[in-house]
Amino acid sequence: MTAVTMTLAQARAWDDTDPLRSFRDRFALPAGVIYLDGNSLGPPPRSAGPSLDRVIRVEWGQGLVRSWNDANWIGAPARVGGKIASLIGAAADEVVAADSTSVNIFKLLAAAMAGRPAPRVILTAKGEFPTDLYLAHGVAATLPGVVVRAVEDDEIEASLTADVAVLLLSHVHYKTAARRDMAAITQRARAVGAVVLWDLSHSAGAVEVDLTASGVDMAVGCGYKFLNGGPGAPAFLFVARRLQPTLRSPLTGWMGHVDPFAFRDDYEAASGIARFLCGTPPMLSLLALEAAIDLWLEVDRQAVAQKAERLWSLMAAQMEARCGGQDFKLISPRETALRGSHIAYSHANGFQIMQALIARGVIGDFRDPDILRFGITPLYLGYEDVWRAVEALREIMLSGDWRRTPPRVAGAVT
Amino acid sequence: MTAVTMTLAQARAWDDTDPLRSFRDRFALPAGVIYLDGNSLGPPPRSAGPSLDRVIRVEWGQGLVRSWNDANWIGAPARVGGKIASLIGAAADEVVAADSTSVNIFKLLAAAMAGRPAPRVILTAKGEFPTDLYLAHGVAATLPGVVVRAVEDDEIEASLTADVAVLLLSHVHYKTAARRDMAAITQRARAVGAVVLWDLSHSAGAVEVDLTASGVDMAVGCGYKFLNGGPGAPAFLFVARRLQPTLRSPLTGWMGHVDPFAFRDDYEAASGIARFLCGTPPMLSLLALEAAIDLWLEVDRQAVAQKAERLWSLMAAQMEARCGGQDFKLISPRETALRGSHIAYSHANGFQIMQALIARGVIGDFRDPDILRFGITPLYLGYEDVWRAVEALREIMLSGDWRRTPPRVAGAVT
Repeated sequence: MTAVTMTLAQARAWDDTDPLRSFRDRFALPAGVIYLDGNSLGPPPRSAGPSLDRVIRVEWGQGLVRSWNDANWIGAPARVGGKIASLIGAAADEVVAADSTSVNIFKLLAAAMAGRPAPRVILTAKGEFPTDLYLAHGVAATLPGVVVRAVEDDEIEASLTADVAVLLLSHVHYKTAARRDMAAITQRARAVGAVVLWDLSHSAGAVEVDLTASGVDMAVGCGYKFLNGGPGAPAFLFVARRLQPTLRSPLTGWMGHVDPFAFRDDYEAASGIARFLCGTPPMLSLLALEAAIDLWLEVDRQAVAQKAERLWSLMAAQMEARCGGQDFKLISPRETALRGSHIAYSHANGFQIMQALIARGVIGDFRDPDILRFGITPLYLGYEDVWRAVEALREIMLSGDWRRTPPRVAGAVT
Repeated sequence: MTAVTMTLAQARAWDDTDPLRSFRDRFALPAGVIYLDGNSLGPPPRSAGPSLDRVIRVEWGQGLVRSWNDANWIGAPARVGGKIASLIGAAADEVVAADSTSVNIFKLLAAAMAGRPAPRVILTAKGEFPTDLYLAHGVAATLPGVVVRAVEDDEIEASLTADVAVLLLSHVHYKTAARRDMAAITQRARAVGAVVLWDLSHSAGAVEVDLTASGVDMAVGCGYKFLNGGPGAPAFLFVARRLQPTLRSPLTGWMGHVDPFAFRDDYEAASGIARFLCGTPPMLSLLALEAAIDLWLEVDRQAVAQKAERLWSLMAAQMEARCGGQDFKLISPRETALRGSHIAYSHANGFQIMQALIARGVIGDFRDPDILRFGITPLYLGYEDVWRAVEALREIMLSGDWRRTPPRVAGAVT
């Protein structure tokens, strides 16, 4: 990582020579907005609207029910999964797009419990993304002999005992962006007979992931963050090919049947990754996700990684240079290999500061208790954007504008 | 039911005075198509395209992550659920739109098992819609002491013994359209301490349903059939208010948390129906469903029921009059109160006949082993449509055209 401060003119010069410059035109961000929340919800690719319009008018409207065959809707979960696979170092037949991350966590946690003697421990980390923790507890409340053990990060290794069935971890932490060593942890877990279920929600589209090289057994991830699949886009689910024949989903819906349209009374799981499908997939959301993934498939991912590092470093350096002394504390690791593609600061007045930023069109987000998050997304962000975002933050701090923001609304999405 | 045959001119005359005539213009069916498969996938309301276009351009594209609050995406599952509630005789706070029918069946079956001593029996009927049976077996494979007992229809009553925790039944059968007596069966189940989980997939939007008057405890249903919510539209889930505090979903995702955006480590279920939400909802699919439901809310449902009966009777009478002697056997009950809103025939050459019909633009569907299904959907079907559909079938039979259809493709959606 190279720290770098620059003038607006320099930032613009970097934008001028940005090899990914053309991809910014593939998104339609509103005028006056600098969008630094792609870690929460990616913006729509320009192709999403026309794509859905065609799906609704032609496939649904003209093809009607025939489109399950004629437009290959029936193949969409595997097809989209196969495309996502190429972004995370998996084989095409190891990934499906299905359900939500939460539902997929349940499927895989429960599947991994089969044949294990009690106590069957789900080991996880305190402060993990809540839905991961909640589902772990939901599995424990549902299956006999399952125990959840949530430990501090530095206790994970020591807690990998023989009773651990599954280690459930985010690859990149949703608050701090801290990135875990996927290969090393996977190997350590395997040494005690456990599998790791990796949550890639803040990794896919954010950092290079190589599930195959890392020897990963199971993973889930989110379609609507860095992948830009649309609000609540279907999630994805990975099971290594070698494990597919032995793992069974508890959610034995008809789309996971070996022959759904035989309408047989008895359940027989599909032989491959399709056994982890459950009900009929939400096709409009799924095909919007596909449009977004198709754009990802055009991208030089090395260029993305390079630009992500430069954007991130620029942000960090500008924050030091322009907002130093304002009590922002960087809580993300600085080293590229140790973090994801957002940058997080703590600040005692974080909530109000973020509201003031958003009011100025610089959209990041806030996480309890005091964290400001900014997503670094090379496909649609430029160097000037980052430069201006920090400048806006500086103005808010110097002017005290943040003190005039409305108080927090209970239950509101942050 | 009054059987009635008529000439084309008479059918047209009925269309001319159809009080629901204007609703047919709210759908954009392709020219030359008579769509009799709304029991499988409803066609798009004309409002669906513009609605999704606005959602993508304005809410997602301009509002970005702010739309969770500003466009009230966060309230969509409860809001759409509340609208569906009004179509099935439920209170607004007893229904949410969420996940798939399959996933919702799992949630409610598992929830209903809590606190029951083994054996905990899921009683159901042979030949039920497969995903219902599959999920029952999935729950039995996942939870200890759960047993699935699938019996013939006429054995259900005698099989309601004290060890039955849940009786899982479709209200309207997906093949025959036979409708069960919801109130009577619910009461009988309750008498032995069981609850009924009703699957309304072929009822909602097809027949009048009054969950409250029928004393129903739990129900699920499909958004993409008679409700016209789009391919794979989110499903819905009903839990009577009195049961909500005691039932807990096994799928404890963050959207079912009492305060998801507090991002707490510990799971605390929301107090009402929201506890049955799991992950982030597929918003594009959910808002397409809402557009379809909004159309339903404009409809005089008594007029729908009346027209459905007349269309159904016309179909049955024309089949007798025009296709009598062609070995079609009506397998749906004739009496309105005993059936749903599709009509089914068995025929030894059913698959090929249906293919020939579809090739002529008359779209119904085929179900193993020999069943032709035709959906009767008053919102977009006219009397002339039904008249012409039977006429096309007659021509196919007389000409022997059906013999020239391609053979069945393995794995294809029927």
